[in-house]
Amino acid sequence: METQSLTIHVKKIEKSKIEQVDFNNLAFGKNYSDHMMYCDYIDGKWQTPQIVPYGPMEFSPSTKVFHYGQAVFEGMKAFKDDAGRVHLFRPEENFKRINKSSERLAIPEFPKDYFFESLETLLKLDHEWVKPGQGNSLYIRPFVIATEEGVAAAPSDAYRFMIITCPSQAYYNKPVKVLFAEKYSRSADGGVGYAKAAGNYGAQFYPTNIAKSKGYDQVIWTDAKTHQYLEEAGTMNIFFRIGDKLLTAPTSDRILDGVTRKSVIQLAKDNGIEVEVAPVEVERIKNAAKAGELKEIFGTGTAATIAKVTGFEHAGDEFTLPKMEVEYSELMKKYLQDIQYNRVEDKNNWLHPIEK
Amino acid sequence: METQSLTIHVKKIEKSKIEQVDFNNLAFGKNYSDHMMYCDYIDGKWQTPQIVPYGPMEFSPSTKVFHYGQAVFEGMKAFKDDAGRVHLFRPEENFKRINKSSERLAIPEFPKDYFFESLETLLKLDHEWVKPGQGNSLYIRPFVIATEEGVAAAPSDAYRFMIITCPSQAYYNKPVKVLFAEKYSRSADGGVGYAKAAGNYGAQFYPTNIAKSKGYDQVIWTDAKTHQYLEEAGTMNIFFRIGDKLLTAPTSDRILDGVTRKSVIQLAKDNGIEVEVAPVEVERIKNAAKAGELKEIFGTGTAATIAKVTGFEHAGDEFTLPKMEVEYSELMKKYLQDIQYNRVEDKNNWLHPIEK
Ligand SMILES: Cc1ncc(COP(=O)(O)O)c(C=O)c1O
Ligand SMILES: Cc1ncc(COP(=O)(O)O)c(C=O)c1O
Repeated sequence: METQSLTIHVKKIEKSKIEQVDFNNLAFGKNYSDHMMYCDYIDGKWQTPQIVPYGPMEFSPSTKVFHYGQAVFEGMKAFKDDAGRVHLFRPEENFKRINKSSERLAIPEFPKDYFFESLETLLKLDHEWVKPGQGNSLYIRPFVIATEEGVAAAPSDAYRFMIITCPSQAYYNKPVKVLFAEKYSRSADGGVGYAKAAGNYGAQFYPTNIAKSKGYDQVIWTDAKTHQYLEEAGTMNIFFRIGDKLLTAPTSDRILDGVTRKSVIQLAKDNGIEVEVAPVEVERIKNAAKAGELKEIFGTGTAATIAKVTGFEHAGDEFTLPKMEVEYSELMKKYLQDIQYNRVEDKNNWLHPIEK
Repeated sequence: METQSLTIHVKKIEKSKIEQVDFNNLAFGKNYSDHMMYCDYIDGKWQTPQIVPYGPMEFSPSTKVFHYGQAVFEGMKAFKDDAGRVHLFRPEENFKRINKSSERLAIPEFPKDYFFESLETLLKLDHEWVKPGQGNSLYIRPFVIATEEGVAAAPSDAYRFMIITCPSQAYYNKPVKVLFAEKYSRSADGGVGYAKAAGNYGAQFYPTNIAKSKGYDQVIWTDAKTHQYLEEAGTMNIFFRIGDKLLTAPTSDRILDGVTRKSVIQLAKDNGIEVEVAPVEVERIKNAAKAGELKEIFGTGTAATIAKVTGFEHAGDEFTLPKMEVEYSELMKKYLQDIQYNRVEDKNNWLHPIEK
């Protein structure tokens, strides 16, 4: 344990822009709160974290992140309970994961106390940006980019860690139709699929656009080797309900170890729902659908929370999911949100309160 | 053919910084010429290209390139011949390739006349930065980045195309020792390996660092599916000389279609050296090495031109390449440079002269 407290430099805004934001009509990731954090890695060392008014910064066109994609990020949320207290949901997981991502991208590890003290200072300052009420939250985006200037393909010797935050409502309003990938792939064994690396996302837009042009909202990625196993969606892990059991793929070096996924697995167990964590064969899902045993598919992710899938297509076969009276997706969302908004006992110790 | 000429906005430097550069001691990609080009894609349209003094620009921390890696680039060179004329080497290839990369990354295509007129204007202005003499060149880095502000994982609606240039000497001074990849991979079928996407590079640094810690300079990537076939290096395609024949892997959606590679294939043919373009089995190379038939390995790329490999390791087996009296790597380099510096007839029409 550190005994000496870290100093964070804070430069406050002069006037909040919160009045200009329509909190009932938020496009996801388009409004930013008053402050942001940045912390530079220079000469082999993370410098003092700086909290400053949110705003643009200068970058040289030769900045390495523009050329070599050395960039990782996280997505996490803060919720306000009915007593007006702000809580982060499982931030330890995001902290560990950003460093895991960084390691794979040859980016230096970020210190734990820098991460938590920055978050706490930022959230205290921007407390008003976390709105109470179902579906409301403050989306928090920590990220790291390579900042050395130079166009030689080698790891950067300078980095910037940043945290920006956006007020958000529920991410997906409507249920989604998905396409199981047959040709394109998101990641491979020995690759960077398990990291929240910037390049993993840009690489998905083109195949996703093709899916969209066919009337599907998202792609469910299959393994690059055989395309026979369902892995995850672009920003969500995927669950299948077969009969009364939930099925989801194990994590691997190809799949992001989602915080919502692991929370759903735990909550299902806590509530007596069986979860099978095993490779998910496309054929098994199609056969279950044909036999009327596939009851639900849903995605899990911080931004979306739980996103219902209404139908899917694979190799020309189209399937529509039944309408269930009791939906596990709804149950899981309720279990999750009850904890996130501090409405039930937090047995698993997932909430990290922010002192005012 | 366009009949009306495109207007490019030009803002010249006040005073050149060329005097400050030591042209005999250039670190690759660390010095930039006086001018750069940028061109914004806004409202569904590429705006007028702007040529301005090289320098930093403002970006919001939510700029999409920082989060989702929608970024592609090119690398090409201009050479000055003994008569003081500047020539681009096969720029059509780079133009086609950047648009191929952009398509895969869901970035809008850049117009051909914008590309060539910008390059020509830029090179006329920065003519003095192209130094004559063996090994000297101006390295040209076109790139495109996603510039919309927003942290939702979806294609950007705004982009910036830029061109920056760096005076350069030969890229690698010393021959390299390489490691054949057994666990990590660079790209997969259905992925973005054939694109010069920023994320492909950042993803290689960590496994390359591991190789370096074992005493190797670079990794030769093998196919992600089986790791039995040699594909390419981080920024070079790879050739193997077995007996008197050259062998190189075919391009695919996993491998970058290198301009130097295709030039070497052509030059080998033009000079009576047989080239086999076929999947390169690791075992075949190891067996050839054991039988004394593997004479050379070399990499080909714009930055490095030709890089000699002196030895390799795979699965604990180490191999040292023999010292040849007549090296194909040296021959190929000479053939290439004779054209690039306009010392021989340019039969294949590869030079694109820049009018003063
Ligand atoms: C590729 C990918 N899979 C899954 C997830 C879900 O992870 P989490 O629940 O931690 O948000 C995300 C989003 O963060 C993601 O980007
Ligand atoms: C992955 C990769 N392979 C090969 C090459 C060589 O291509 P070229 O000869 O066009 O420079 C490069 C460099 O540009 C590269 O980045």
